[in-house]
Order: sequence, then C-alpha cells, then structure tokens
Amino acid sequence: MKFSEIVQKLDVPSHSSILNTDLDPEITGLAPIDNAPTGTLSYIEGGKFAAMLHKTTASALILPPDEKLQEQAVERGIAWIADTEPRLLFAKAIALFYKPFRPDVGIHPSAVIHPSVQIGRDIYVGPNVVIQAGVKIGNEVCIHPNVVIYPKVEIGDRTTLHANCTIHERSRIGANCVIHSGAVIGAEGFGFVPTSSGWFKMEQSGCTVLEDGVEVGCNSTIDRPAVGETRIAQNTKIDNLVQIGHGCQVGSNCALASQVGLAGGVKVGNNVLLAGQVGIANQAEIGDGAIATAKSGIHNNIEPGAIVSGVPAVSHKLFLKASAIYNRLPEMYQLFKQIQRHSTNK
Amino acid sequence: MKFSEIVQKLDVPSHSSILNTDLDPEITGLAPIDNAPTGTLSYIEGGKFAAMLHKTTASALILPPDEKLQEQAVERGIAWIADTEPRLLFAKAIALFYKPFRPDVGIHPSAVIHPSVQIGRDIYVGPNVVIQAGVKIGNEVCIHPNVVIYPKVEIGDRTTLHANCTIHERSRIGANCVIHSGAVIGAEGFGFVPTSSGWFKMEQSGCTVLEDGVEVGCNSTIDRPAVGETRIAQNTKIDNLVQIGHGCQVGSNCALASQVGLAGGVKVGNNVLLAGQVGIANQAEIGDGAIATAKSGIHNNIEPGAIVSGVPAVSHKLFLKASAIYNRLPEMYQLFKQIQRHSTNK
Amino acid sequence: MKFSEIVQKLDVPSHSSILNTDLDPEITGLAPIDNAPTGTLSYIEGGKFAAMLHKTTASALILPPDEKLQEQAVERGIAWIADTEPRLLFAKAIALFYKPFRPDVGIHPSAVIHPSVQIGRDIYVGPNVVIQAGVKIGNEVCIHPNVVIYPKVEIGDRTTLHANCTIHERSRIGANCVIHSGAVIGAEGFGFVPTSSGWFKMEQSGCTVLEDGVEVGCNSTIDRPAVGETRIAQNTKIDNLVQIGHGCQVGSNCALASQVGLAGGVKVGNNVLLAGQVGIANQAEIGDGAIATAKSGIHNNIEPGAIVSGVPAVSHKLFLKASAIYNRLPEMYQLFKQIQRHSTNK
Repeated sequence: MKFSEIVQKLDVPSHSSILNTDLDPEITGLAPIDNAPTGTLSYIEGGKFAAMLHKTTASALILPPDEKLQEQAVERGIAWIADTEPRLLFAKAIALFYKPFRPDVGIHPSAVIHPSVQIGRDIYVGPNVVIQAGVKIGNEVCIHPNVVIYPKVEIGDRTTLHANCTIHERSRIGANCVIHSGAVIGAEGFGFVPTSSGWFKMEQSGCTVLEDGVEVGCNSTIDRPAVGETRIAQNTKIDNLVQIGHGCQVGSNCALASQVGLAGGVKVGNNVLLAGQVGIANQAEIGDGAIATAKSGIHNNIEPGAIVSGVPAVSHKLFLKASAIYNRLPEMYQLFKQIQRHSTNK
Repeated sequence: MKFSEIVQKLDVPSHSSILNTDLDPEITGLAPIDNAPTGTLSYIEGGKFAAMLHKTTASALILPPDEKLQEQAVERGIAWIADTEPRLLFAKAIALFYKPFRPDVGIHPSAVIHPSVQIGRDIYVGPNVVIQAGVKIGNEVCIHPNVVIYPKVEIGDRTTLHANCTIHERSRIGANCVIHSGAVIGAEGFGFVPTSSGWFKMEQSGCTVLEDGVEVGCNSTIDRPAVGETRIAQNTKIDNLVQIGHGCQVGSNCALASQVGLAGGVKVGNNVLLAGQVGIANQAEIGDGAIATAKSGIHNNIEPGAIVSGVPAVSHKLFLKASAIYNRLPEMYQLFKQIQRHSTNK
Repeated sequence: MKFSEIVQKLDVPSHSSILNTDLDPEITGLAPIDNAPTGTLSYIEGGKFAAMLHKTTASALILPPDEKLQEQAVERGIAWIADTEPRLLFAKAIALFYKPFRPDVGIHPSAVIHPSVQIGRDIYVGPNVVIQAGVKIGNEVCIHPNVVIYPKVEIGDRTTLHANCTIHERSRIGANCVIHSGAVIGAEGFGFVPTSSGWFKMEQSGCTVLEDGVEVGCNSTIDRPAVGETRIAQNTKIDNLVQIGHGCQVGSNCALASQVGLAGGVKVGNNVLLAGQVGIANQAEIGDGAIATAKSGIHNNIEPGAIVSGVPAVSHKLFLKASAIYNRLPEMYQLFKQIQRHSTNK
C-alpha cells in the first residue's frame, strides 16, 4: 500500500500534513522505530524515541507536531505525517495491515455442552470446551479450546474467551469483552473466618460481573464475594496476573497494569490508572481519575485525581522528594552525628 | 425463612438477644450492608461499616455487642441480633441459604484415565480430565473439567480440584483440600546451578505434599524440590497467584494472601498470616503466629508472634514511626540544612 | 549404589578426595541435609547449613573445601567428598538416581490436530491437546495433556510443553525449551491508547520468540507486541508467575525469579539476575550482568554489572546503608528536634 493511501485511510485531521510530497514509498508493514526494515512505517512519540530518528531505516514515520523532527525526517529522506497523537494514529495504521486471528464459526464436536445451554447465532466453540448447565451465550461469541464454563454463567455478544480460561458459576460477562488465556473469573473469594478451632469457611454465594468492553489479562483472577457482587465496570482494561479480591467494585475506563492486587471490598472509581504491582488493602476507596505509580501500597482512601506512590502511598510529589533524600540519608546521618557531638561538647 | 428461624438455626450464645421481638421479617437472602435490598440479612463488623447503618435497607442485621448500634437499628426498624463475632455468625447464616455447586457423581466418558489408576467411591470426574499412571484417588473426590493429573499422585477423600488445575508427578494431596482453577501443584522447582558454561539444570526429584484441609487459590504455584518435600501443613489457606518455592515448609492454620511469594527453602511456622504481596527470601524462617503486613520483604528470620512490615521488614511499630517520619524527610532536610549552615557560620 | 561408585561417576576434579576410604556406604537416594535418612547422600553449601552437620543422619556428604567441616564429618562417621561447587556436584548426583517422567512417544487419539500441522519424528502429544493450522513441531517434542497451540506457531526440537499451557499465534519457540504448566506465551500485549472516547485497542500484530534453551515457569506470561518481537534469548530461565510485557528484549543466560514483572519495551542484557518480585518500568534498559535484589522497583537504566535494590532502585550498598538509617529515623528525629529547639533557644 502506498504511504499516501495509508494517510488517506487514516483520515488524519487537516492540520497534519505530508511535507515531502515527492516521497510516497510503498509500505509493506509496520515496525518499531529501533528495528524497522526498509519499506515499513513506524512512529515516534516522546523524547526517548526521537534519538532513533537519525538511524532508523523505516521508510515512513508518524511524528508528533515537532518541526525539528520533521526536518530531520526530510533530511533523511523519510516520508512522514505529523499528528498530536502519533501512537493513536499508529494503532489505526496497524489495523489497516493486520487481521487478528479469528476461528471460523462452528462448534467443535469434542466440545461438551449441557443440553440446557442457550447459544446465540454465529458463535465459535473450540475443541474440548466444556459448558455446563444453564449457561447463556450471546451472538458471535468466540470460545477458544479448553475453556471451562461453570453453571449459570452469562456471556454477552461478541465476547472472546481465550484458551484455558475458566469462568465460574453465576458470572455475568458483558458484550465485547475479552478474557485472555488462563484467566479465572468468579472463583470463590478468600473468605475464612478465624475461630478457636481454626478457619471457618465462609461460602461465597455472590458472583462476579464484568460489564461491556472489559478485558482481563492472562492468568488474572477476579473472585466472587460471599454475598453481592464483584463488579468491573465498562471498558476497564486489566493486564496479566492481576488479582481482584471478593467484592471489589472497579469503575469504568480504568487500566490496571500487570500484577496489581486488590484485596477484598476495594472500591476503585472511574478512569483510574494503577501501574504494575500496585497493591490496595481491604476496603480502601480510590477516587475517580487517581493514579498509583508502580509498586505503590495503598492502605487508605485516595482522593479523586490524586497521584500517589510508595508504601504506604503518599502524594507522588512528596514521594519523589522524600525518596531523593532517602538516598542522602547516610551522608545526612554522618553530618547529623557531627552536629550532635558538637552540640554535646559545648 | 423468618428471621427468628434463622437465629434459632444459628444456635447463637445466650448472651445475644433480639431486642425487637415484634420485628420478625421474612428473610429471602443475604447481602452486603452497602447494597442490601429489603428482605435481606446483613452484618456490621467494625467502625467503617457502622456508618452505613443509618442508610441500609437491610431488613435484619447481625451486630457487634455495641448498644449504640443496636439502638440505631431499633430506631430504623431493623431486626437485629448481636454477637461478639458478627462475621462468623454471618458466615453461618450464608450456609443456611446457599448450596455450593457440586456436580453429580460419575465419570465423564471423555475423561482419559490410565488403567492403573485407583479410584474411590462416589467420585466425580468431569469432561476432558486426564489422570495418568499410578494415581490414587480417594472417596467423594470432585475433579472438575480439564484437570490434568501427572503420574503417581495421591488425592485424599473429599478433595476438590477445580477446572484447569494441574497436579504434577508424585504430589500427595490430603483429604478435604480444595485446589482452585489454574493452580499448579508440584511442578519442577526453579533449580539452576550457575557454571562457567551456563545454567546446569538440577533435576527436581522431590515432591509436594499438601496435608488435610489445605486450600490453594487460583493460578497459585507450589513447586517441588530437588530432594525431599515441599510441604503445606493442615488447614493452611492460600489465596490466588501465590508462589511457594521448592522445599518450603509451611505450618498449619496459616493464611497466605494473594500474590505472596516464598523463595526456596522458606520455613513458615503455624498460625502465620502473610498479607498480600509479601515476599520471603531463601531459607528464611518465620516463627509461629507471626504476621507480615502487605508488601513486606523478609530476608531474615522472624520471631514467633512478631508483626513485621517494610522492605527489609522490621517491627510493624518501628515501620509505622519511621514511615511517618519518612514523609517529613523533605521538611526535616530543609531544617537540617539550616542548622548545618548556622553551625558552619559560627 | 556404593558411595565410591557415585564419586567415580561424578568425575570429580583430582583436588577433591575422600578421606575416609574405609567408609563406603551403600547410597539409596539423595536428601536435604536437615531431613536426610540413613543411606542418603546430601550436601552442604554455605554457613547456614554447616550447623546441621552435627546432627544430620545422612550417610555421605558433598562438602565445600573446608577442613573443619571435613573433620567434623570424619568424627561423625559420615563419608564425604569435597568440591568447590558442592551444589553443582549434588545436582549431578541427583541425575544418577532420578529419571524425570517422560511419556512414551505417540499421539493420543483425543488430540485435535489441524491437517496442515507439520510434525517431526518421535514426538508425544497427550490427550486433549489442540494444535491449530500452520503449526510446525520439531523432533522429539513432548506436548503434555490439554495444551493449546494457536495457528502458525513453531516449536523446536526436544522442547517440552507442560499441561494446560497455551502458545499463541505466530510464537516461535526454540529447541530444548521447557514451558511449564499454565504459562501463556505470545498472548496480546496490553496495548490501549487513551482517547477522549475511551481506550482504543492497538492490535498486537507482533510475535513472541523464545530462543533455544529457554525455560518459562508455571503460569508466567510473555506477551507479544503491537509490532516487532518480544524476545527471550538463549538459555534464559524464568520462574513462576513472571510477567514479560510486549516488546521486551531479554538477553541470554539470565535468571528471572518468581513474580518478576517487566513492563513494555524493557531491554535486559545478558547474564542478568532479577530476584523475586522485582518490577521494571516501560523502556528501561538493564546492562549485562546486573543484579536486582528482591522487590526492587527499577524506573531508569541500570549500568552493566550494577547491583541495585529498593524502590526506586539505587545501588545495593547505598540501599543497605540508607535502610539501616531508616530504622533509626524515629530516634534521629527525636535528637533532631532537640537540636532544633536548642538552636532556636539560643
């Protein structure tokens, strides 16, 4: 596909432009900037990657609105287009070239489906899938091999369940969701009450609900509670190996990075970002739009819009200052001892 | 079921009482206090939830022995019962209403069971289960779909293996255990010896032993060692995504919260609580009844009964003090600099 | 097997020796030093285990070149051999006694294999394995039950895939690799671009490549990127529950301990050691031979050979000093306040 054709299909806002109109290379695919063969389209976003412009062998680039970079591209004979959101444009360009794998409609004869299961039209059910009693499955659902669905689960239209994931009893999964391989949705919450004679198991009679457009990463686990629901609201995206404890309520449009852990009953607002390995203690509430940086440990409620870091988590600004001083503690301690001696000697 | 009937079935100690004897609502189910429809029974434990009493629409409550709360409930026309352990009582109430899913006894024809396998009575083996040579399975065992059991494993009476879990060779799992979906028991420990020509793989000839009443959460992993055993003692409960390294010895009645990681050869006593994302280094020993708060990183031995926090872990009291001062470090550093200047100028 | 026979087979360098030539016990197996029945061979490496020599009931020991330990063994009537690398020698001794489980060659009739799949000689394919279109499988490959392989995957010679793991489309796995149970290779990276109307999903058109000799632990996840490759170089060993984000490049001969998490685009050099629960932020670069201690949080590039600790990670030496002073912060703060008062009063 000619670069000009790609640009046309991307429907870029008019303030962007292709300077080198005489350059219109044939683009055969997309590539990362630091490993882009001739004939590929790549993109630059932010300072770190800008340094790679002088050596990339990409034939075309999506650039930010930065004239210096644009001039450099011209000098290097690279076709380019500029946009305020290069990464978004690149994502759209990928979709022009890449057709994700999707099995043909049909139910494999090795699938074990209970006769009471209700199934929509145009679905795919792969080999060795097990679907138990009372399950309802929408239209155009795609269930990859070796998935197990416990009784009374509901799966919305156009949702994809990847291989080897498990959906436990009574879970309700909305439309346009993706559950990645090995994820476990709606298993029993960790509910044990201490007694003088040991742990008393609290039955987990609740369920897990994923609203429309939720994605759950590989091997992540979202437990169901003793009573009520664990709920993930619309369009929230969850990465791999994330734990969501029983009874958590996660808002819409959040992103939870890998290895995040929410204990029981945590409430997360809308548009919240939790970076990798963040942990949130029982019952804590995280306000809308809050951000927790990687490895934060949150024990208390977090205000809407706050950015927090550290264990226990404090404002990110304070964390940056305090952790900078933390590194000077040995030196500070030495001086402190000197002053102390001085002060005592007087 | 009438509330009075529930109370009767719960067999509550005599010091508890229902004040509003004229209130005896029909209870149709149980619910969390902050989302309790009319007709449900809920409970309050601790201060945070007490604030919800004034707006809950639950028809009955299990309360702590707190007269103020009891009066409030009376004022709001909510039937109640008080107990020193409201959560335990609530757990027992759930068991009156909820019958956990349990498949009917039988072996699905798609299960692949080696002829040498010994199987007890009244067991369930789901579709696509694979049980390899020399495995012994007790009575009333429940093996959900797509479980794989490697050779020479032993599974005790009334144990449940959830869908998509894997039990590796020679593992011995006791009676009344629950292995949740995706968990992997008894896989090879991470044993690589560095040599001048790269890693030398140490074969993992040992096995993993889970004693009676152990639960292992979804996608948790308990490795086997090079020699000897990895052992989890009776009634210890392990949450999701927990890693137990090769050769660990975990005592009885412990609770390991989600995403805890034990390196190799760790010894954990009895009645130990490890909160979420705690990590314990190779060979460390944790005394009976110790508690590690969330995200602690333990490198050394911990005394019995100690409560520890932080990385590296110190006493929880010290951690609370030091982390409070940590937040004042920027301010402290400013004053410190002033004093230093003052001291120098003299 | 006589101890002398074991020693002979181990082909120990000549500077080692068996002192007690009159002792040549029959060895029936291997065991850990703290739980070694009579008739077993064990080993001692490092100070901690040395303390166990006076009470072990092992019949023979592999010792470090430490005369005191050797004398102790003589006194206790324990046969021994000394070597500079006792653990390596013990690993070799295990291999004399232990034959790992390996199923017989053959393809189980319940496996679902697309007709376009190319299969080498002498392979094992277990029950309920699913292999999709265009997959190429080398010689002597061992695919345990319930594994799912998406389309166009390549698996090299002598590689083992353990039960319930999932290999996603276009992944290329080299020779002599081991993928442990529940691991997920090559699933979609976590690529969502924020827009005013919510997350825009970036299709993940790249692939994951594992070079020869790579091991991936149970339930670990190695994502594929939007474009290009996620690549793990030769002989790198990855423990359980590790997350490798989209587009990471990990060098050769590394060891990544359990629950490590690499965000997107991280570059790890050769011979790097990442201890348990380490996290590395997007795009960070870790130099050859660097070591990150347990729970480190790395945001910036790390020099080759550096040893780092803490969050954010600093040199391990500085971390040790600073964290020692951290514990004195309360005391330091008190003194600081006194000095401040003193200074003000003057």
